[in-house]
Amino acid sequence: MPGDSMDKPNIVTCTAPVNIAVIKYWGKRNEELILPINSSLSVTLHQDQLKTTTTVATSTSFQEDRIWLNGKEEDITHPRLQSCLREIRRLARKRRNDGDPALDSSALSHKVHICSVNNFPTAAGLASSAAGFACLVYSLARVFGVEGELSGIARQGSGSACRSIYGGFVQWIMGQKDDGQDSLAQQVEPETHWPELRILVLVASAERKPVGSTSGMQTSVQTSSLLKHRAESVVPGRMVEMIEAVRRKNFAAFAELTMKDSNQFHATCLDTYPPIFYLNSVSQQVISLVHRYNRHYGETRLAYTFDAGPNAVVYTLQQHVPEFVQAVQHFFPPESNGGQFIQGLPVDHAALSEELKQAIGLEPMPKGISYVISTKAGPGPRVLEDPTQHLLGSDGLPKKTV
Amino acid sequence: MPGDSMDKPNIVTCTAPVNIAVIKYWGKRNEELILPINSSLSVTLHQDQLKTTTTVATSTSFQEDRIWLNGKEEDITHPRLQSCLREIRRLARKRRNDGDPALDSSALSHKVHICSVNNFPTAAGLASSAAGFACLVYSLARVFGVEGELSGIARQGSGSACRSIYGGFVQWIMGQKDDGQDSLAQQVEPETHWPELRILVLVASAERKPVGSTSGMQTSVQTSSLLKHRAESVVPGRMVEMIEAVRRKNFAAFAELTMKDSNQFHATCLDTYPPIFYLNSVSQQVISLVHRYNRHYGETRLAYTFDAGPNAVVYTLQQHVPEFVQAVQHFFPPESNGGQFIQGLPVDHAALSEELKQAIGLEPMPKGISYVISTKAGPGPRVLEDPTQHLLGSDGLPKKTV
Repeated sequence: MPGDSMDKPNIVTCTAPVNIAVIKYWGKRNEELILPINSSLSVTLHQDQLKTTTTVATSTSFQEDRIWLNGKEEDITHPRLQSCLREIRRLARKRRNDGDPALDSSALSHKVHICSVNNFPTAAGLASSAAGFACLVYSLARVFGVEGELSGIARQGSGSACRSIYGGFVQWIMGQKDDGQDSLAQQVEPETHWPELRILVLVASAERKPVGSTSGMQTSVQTSSLLKHRAESVVPGRMVEMIEAVRRKNFAAFAELTMKDSNQFHATCLDTYPPIFYLNSVSQQVISLVHRYNRHYGETRLAYTFDAGPNAVVYTLQQHVPEFVQAVQHFFPPESNGGQFIQGLPVDHAALSEELKQAIGLEPMPKGISYVISTKAGPGPRVLEDPTQHLLGSDGLPKKTV
Repeated sequence: MPGDSMDKPNIVTCTAPVNIAVIKYWGKRNEELILPINSSLSVTLHQDQLKTTTTVATSTSFQEDRIWLNGKEEDITHPRLQSCLREIRRLARKRRNDGDPALDSSALSHKVHICSVNNFPTAAGLASSAAGFACLVYSLARVFGVEGELSGIARQGSGSACRSIYGGFVQWIMGQKDDGQDSLAQQVEPETHWPELRILVLVASAERKPVGSTSGMQTSVQTSSLLKHRAESVVPGRMVEMIEAVRRKNFAAFAELTMKDSNQFHATCLDTYPPIFYLNSVSQQVISLVHRYNRHYGETRLAYTFDAGPNAVVYTLQQHVPEFVQAVQHFFPPESNGGQFIQGLPVDHAALSEELKQAIGLEPMPKGISYVISTKAGPGPRVLEDPTQHLLGSDGLPKKTV
C-alpha cells in the first residue's frame, strides 16, 4: 500500500568519525565479545575530512534485515553485524519492558534496512570499520530509541569502533569482567581541548593488501611472548603517561609516547610467528624523516603512528604543518604537481631551507606517497536532520545518487 | 742489522671462522668487558668459504705495535684491540712467572706487527669482527705461547668473536660475575655432528650502511623494554630448547626457534627509540619465500636468520639446497645469468615446479640478491704451517701480493 502512513519507513541518518590510536590496541582476550588484552587511547579525527554516513530505516513493509555498504549489498548475517543488531534490540526491549513512556515500541518488531558510505577510499587504509560500526550502532540506537552507553555495543562490531563513539581524546578501558560490561570507551578530553593539534594522514601507495587485523592479532596473541609482556607490563604505565600528556597538552611527551607505542606494536607484529610486516620502505622513510626533522630542530615537533598498514599518520602542531608538508613533497615527489596532493584543511605554502633538506639527507622516493589528508581532532557521531541527506529513499532502498 | 738472527721476526699465521647466531646476542650489561645480557648460540661456518687470515709477528727490531687490516694500516690504539693485546701479554707474563719451562719469554717485551685479511668482502655484511678478533687472539696466543681458554679474551675484542674460537655448534654462556670470568664460549657439538646441515648466505644488494651493532645495542638496552623482557624471560628457555634441538638434530625444532629468535631480535630493534631497521624489502621477501616454501611442503625445511643487516642466512638440509637455490634465482633474478650467482660448495641443478612457484606466488625482485654463498658448519681456528702463507714478510711488513 504505497502512500499509507503505516508503511512509511522510520528513517535516521547519522555520521561518525575515524579515530587514530596513539596507544595501540592489538590482541583480544575474548574473540566473541571483543575484549582487549590492554587499554588503548585515540584521537577522534574531524568528520569534515573523514567520516562514515549511515542511514537506518525500519518499516512494517520490510521483509528482512538488509545492508548496503559503499553501494553494494552485503551479507547481513555477518556475526559482528548481528551482535550489534541483537544488542540494540535487546536494549530497546528492556526500555519498553521497563515502561519508558517516551519510547515508540512499534519499531521493535520491524525489519531494518541499513545503508552506509565512507567519504574516503578504502584504499586509504584507514580503519573504516571503526567509523562504520560506530555509525551503525549510533544510528540503530536512534531508530530504536535506545539511549545511554553505546561504546560497549560498538565494541562488539569492531574493537576500535567503541572509541569512535566519542569526540576528542578517547580511552578504551580494557575492563576486567568476563562479560565485558566494563570494557568501554570514555572521553579523556573533548575535541576543543587542544585546538593547535593537527593530524596528517600520509597515504602510501601500497602494493599489496596486508594481513587483516583480526587474524593478525589472533596469531600475535598465540605466538608472541613480547605482546603478552607489552599488554601486561608496558601499556598500563603508558596509559597513565599519555592521559597526563594530553591533559597538559605536552606535545613532546605526547609525541614520543605515540612513536614508541607505534613502534612497539609493530615490534610485536614482527615477534609474531610467522611474522607480520605492516611497515614498508615508504613507512621506514617517513620514520627516518620524522626523527631527522625533530633532531634538526632539537625538539620533538612531529610524531608518526602506523596502524595495520603502511600509511603514516603524523601528529604535529598547526605552526609546523606548512614546512613539514613541504618536506613530505620534497622527499616523496608526487606523480604530478597538481594541488590534489594535499587534501582536507588548507595548508599554507612554506619554503624548505637547504639546511633542513641536508639535515634530513634522505634519497627522495618518487610517488611513495599518493596524497596527504590534513585534518584535526573532531566531535563524535552526529544526527543529520536534513532528510535530503538520507541514503535510503522512502521505498527503503538506496537512492540512486552515487 | 738486517740478516741478524736476533732481528728475524717470530711469525705465526692462523685462520678463524665466521659464526652465525641462531639465538641472538643483542645488548651488553658491561660495555668495557663486553658482557652480554643473555646467552647466545651459533653455528661456526666452514673456513673453506669464509675466513679471516691473520699473521702476527714479534721482533726486537719493531719500534711499536702496528696493525694492517685488509691492506690498510689501522689505528692500533683502538680500545678493543688494546684489550686483547693487554690480556694476552698478561697471560704470557703469568705463565712465565708461574715458571713454565716451555715458554720462550723473550717475545714478551717485543712489539707486535699484525696483518689480517678476510676472504670475503666487507660488503657481504657478515660479522667480520667475530672472525677477525677470534683470529687475532688465536694468533697472538700462539706467538706469545699462551694456552688454554681464549674465548674470554676474544670476547673483549668483539662479543660474538668468543663463539668463533670453537667449531661446530657453540654457546656463549652469559655468566653472572661482574669481572666476566664466567662469560665464555663452549662447544655444544663439533662440526661433524650434523653433516647434512647446509648454510646459504643470501647477500642482499644493500643500499645504505645500517646502524652499527655496538651503538645499536646500546640504544636498545637504554630504550627497549621488550629487550629486557626477552633477555630475562625468553632467551633462557630458548637456549635449553636450542641445545636440545641441535643434540637431537631435530631440524624442524632448530629451524622454528632460529626464525622466531631472529624475528624477536629485530622486534627489539624496532622497539628501540629511535627505531632501528635492519630488514629491508629484500629481507621481507626472503622471509615470505621461506614461510611459503615450508607451508607448501607442510614441513619446516628452511630457516632464515638475519643479523644487523639485510642479508639472510638460510639453514637447511643438503637434500633441499638445489631446489631452494632455484627458487631464490627465480624470485630474485640475478643481473646476468653467470655462474657467479652461487659461490662456495657446488649446488646441483634442480627444476622448479610450476606448482611450487605458484604456491610461493611472490612478485620477483630483480637484482634483490647479489649472490649466494653455499657453505656448511666447520672447525674452529687453525694454524697455517706453510710459511709462504704469512701475510707479513721477514721485514715485518705486509707482503705486496694483494
